[in-house]
Amino acid sequence: MFEKVLIANRGEIAVRIIRACREMGIETVAVYSEADREALHTQLADEAVCIGPAPSTESYLSMERIISATIISGADAIHPGFGFLSENSKFAELCAQCNITFIGPSAEVMRRMGHKSQARNTMIEAGVPVIPGSTEAIYDAKTGAQIAAGIGYPVIVKAALGGGGKGMRVAETPEEFENAFNTAQTETKAAFGDDTMYIEHFVQNPRHIEFQILADNYGNVIHLGERDCSVQRNHQKMIEESPSVAISQELRERMGEAAVKAAKAAEYTNAGTIEFLLEKSNNFYFMEMNTRIQVEHPVTEWVTGVDLIKEQIRIAAGAHLSLTQDDVKITGHAIECRINAENPAKNFRPSPGTIRDMYLPGGKGVRIDSAIYSGYTVSPYYDSMLAKLIVHAKNRDEAIKKMRSALGEIIIEGIDTNVDYQYEIFNNPQFISGDINIEFINQLNASAAETNHE
Amino acid sequence: MFEKVLIANRGEIAVRIIRACREMGIETVAVYSEADREALHTQLADEAVCIGPAPSTESYLSMERIISATIISGADAIHPGFGFLSENSKFAELCAQCNITFIGPSAEVMRRMGHKSQARNTMIEAGVPVIPGSTEAIYDAKTGAQIAAGIGYPVIVKAALGGGGKGMRVAETPEEFENAFNTAQTETKAAFGDDTMYIEHFVQNPRHIEFQILADNYGNVIHLGERDCSVQRNHQKMIEESPSVAISQELRERMGEAAVKAAKAAEYTNAGTIEFLLEKSNNFYFMEMNTRIQVEHPVTEWVTGVDLIKEQIRIAAGAHLSLTQDDVKITGHAIECRINAENPAKNFRPSPGTIRDMYLPGGKGVRIDSAIYSGYTVSPYYDSMLAKLIVHAKNRDEAIKKMRSALGEIIIEGIDTNVDYQYEIFNNPQFISGDINIEFINQLNASAAETNHE
Repeated sequence: MFEKVLIANRGEIAVRIIRACREMGIETVAVYSEADREALHTQLADEAVCIGPAPSTESYLSMERIISATIISGADAIHPGFGFLSENSKFAELCAQCNITFIGPSAEVMRRMGHKSQARNTMIEAGVPVIPGSTEAIYDAKTGAQIAAGIGYPVIVKAALGGGGKGMRVAETPEEFENAFNTAQTETKAAFGDDTMYIEHFVQNPRHIEFQILADNYGNVIHLGERDCSVQRNHQKMIEESPSVAISQELRERMGEAAVKAAKAAEYTNAGTIEFLLEKSNNFYFMEMNTRIQVEHPVTEWVTGVDLIKEQIRIAAGAHLSLTQDDVKITGHAIECRINAENPAKNFRPSPGTIRDMYLPGGKGVRIDSAIYSGYTVSPYYDSMLAKLIVHAKNRDEAIKKMRSALGEIIIEGIDTNVDYQYEIFNNPQFISGDINIEFINQLNASAAETNHE
Repeated sequence: MFEKVLIANRGEIAVRIIRACREMGIETVAVYSEADREALHTQLADEAVCIGPAPSTESYLSMERIISATIISGADAIHPGFGFLSENSKFAELCAQCNITFIGPSAEVMRRMGHKSQARNTMIEAGVPVIPGSTEAIYDAKTGAQIAAGIGYPVIVKAALGGGGKGMRVAETPEEFENAFNTAQTETKAAFGDDTMYIEHFVQNPRHIEFQILADNYGNVIHLGERDCSVQRNHQKMIEESPSVAISQELRERMGEAAVKAAKAAEYTNAGTIEFLLEKSNNFYFMEMNTRIQVEHPVTEWVTGVDLIKEQIRIAAGAHLSLTQDDVKITGHAIECRINAENPAKNFRPSPGTIRDMYLPGGKGVRIDSAIYSGYTVSPYYDSMLAKLIVHAKNRDEAIKKMRSALGEIIIEGIDTNVDYQYEIFNNPQFISGDINIEFINQLNASAAETNHE
């Protein structure tokens, strides 16, 4: 086992990793920017090394400085957390060259899964469902219609080269196809000076369902069930839960098997996440793999009892998985809610500043992962997430009630937060019914904007 | 179900009950003394009623004022928490007379179990083991020796009428009996002017093992496993855990059956605790029953998943038990540690005052039940308990490591606390080995005093 681990991160995830190390008897080294001198992770670690000025490029993203801090402090391994350098294959490579264990998959695997089309091809070869799409260039509506019929409606016609939403049209039925294709192609030609088109199955209002994976260095791969992360604003997750109301045990097994197959095809090691889009029809499609620990890992921890950070460290140190697929049992229901320093009334504008006064709830079934305290100054340089509030109860209904009660207790003074906004979601009938998809928040905000306009 | 519950208590248990009610959709009424205007329970409840000055006899112990507050606020039921009026059968009776549901057992059951010798007789009739003792008056060593042989060595000879440790002698073996009896009798005569003696089996360095009971109004009684509360200072529990390292599954079933038998014999309803003394030989003896929720209930909650406060409320509202004995599964290991405002270096003298600054830990497997916050003033009028820190992990070893890590994070400035003292216990080899009994802390303090003296 490692004697000393350097945590190449900040905020609550750095604190989370320090706690896991401490419980395992491993010494910890924090790195911090000049803006983070008073940060909790800086204070909690056994040692702390300043690695540069506030902008991340000069500190938390500086590979050289982090490697230097590791060598100087004599740490055996680096835990990258999430964000920053956690999915940077160059950094993983650099660690290997310096004989430092990178707690995560190998650089090669990170590259393989980080490159979208390479990942897609790996999945197709492994038989993991991906969103069906055309494989050759399309120039006319007639050929397009034949291909669309093979792919299955609804379809989306896109510019093969373009991006940014230009030259895109959805055809719900074959009748709509010709018109959609021609409009999209005209737009594409105008925007990109090219009329090559691409057709893909249009996944309508899907759920975001992801599977947690653990894989050791000896070919053992298990999944720990799903997380439903459909509550998102501009692709930023706000609420995550496990299990998902949309997933039957049969579907869980099917998707779980696909996730394990995906991880095996990628020759993956350590903790990772396979993200799927799930249609109402229960068709699911591989979206991408995250080759690191995720913000929302606590909901999986609570329903399975597994400490994912400790597993990451053990796996990186060469241990076998501490459990088998049969050992994984899902108990109760867990929900996580991200508390951010932002103002929902002002388009969720970040709200840095000093926390004057603070009270966070506790008690049965309440977990808080945070790095804030009374008097702490939220820096404008970093992510606006202040805390993760995680609850666990017998079932979803009780977990929602617990979340409402816990959110109602939070006091954070001196900065704006999204606590009231989150509270509203936990009182929203649609959310409570569980009938949600990735458009839920956008629709909610749009209808709120409309009401305000009237 | 009740619409509104009044909580006749203060501090963390009042907060705990408010949270449970809120999650159940029940409105809450707090009562508070003049010293508790700024208390957390006063702030968190939907309504709050001031019931008098700081001394408990004029507020939290005033039955009339609490009943009045209940009637005025229109609450249907009273939750008494622990301490104060929670085991007062008169108060339970008064509630019944006023058509207020007392969330606990009936006044009659409370009386039956509150009266030591009546409780003992009920247990003997039910076949629950009690500490074997003489049933008739003894005046001479010869008769005494015969009775002692029947009871089983070691025995303790006591004054039949006295108390306070006077006229007490232990005889480890039959050879020691005559001398012990005569010395005790001489002392008894001198101290109390009477020479009637009583002989009891001497339970040597036992563990304090208690079983959590739940009983509905329809004769269904289950137990939720044991709590080991052997770490006590002057009969005040400091650390509690579940399960106990001393209890095999076979013994758990045997003691659990005895506990259920005891509750049935008492015609008990609601949540209660059967306290046993457990000898190294695995003989166990009924000590007493607590007819209320206990401070240490969270450890049982964590290993069983059952919310004991909600069960109390449901049972009082006439619901059937929500689970059967077979549904009770013990998962992992939970430990609770009481954080008190006291100075261990000054014989644990209470340390009231204002908390200037505060940081309490969180994260996976950490639960905090408390009613303190930065700026909160700890009153000299009440119990010195500030917070309960509860941890849960896969096994005892990991739970101890987690507790050490969590204790190490606590910052409470402005008053003295026992945090460092507790931290030492979690590093004590004897505690870690699990080989402890109710004399553990006394021996620890005695040896520390000796070391200081040298």
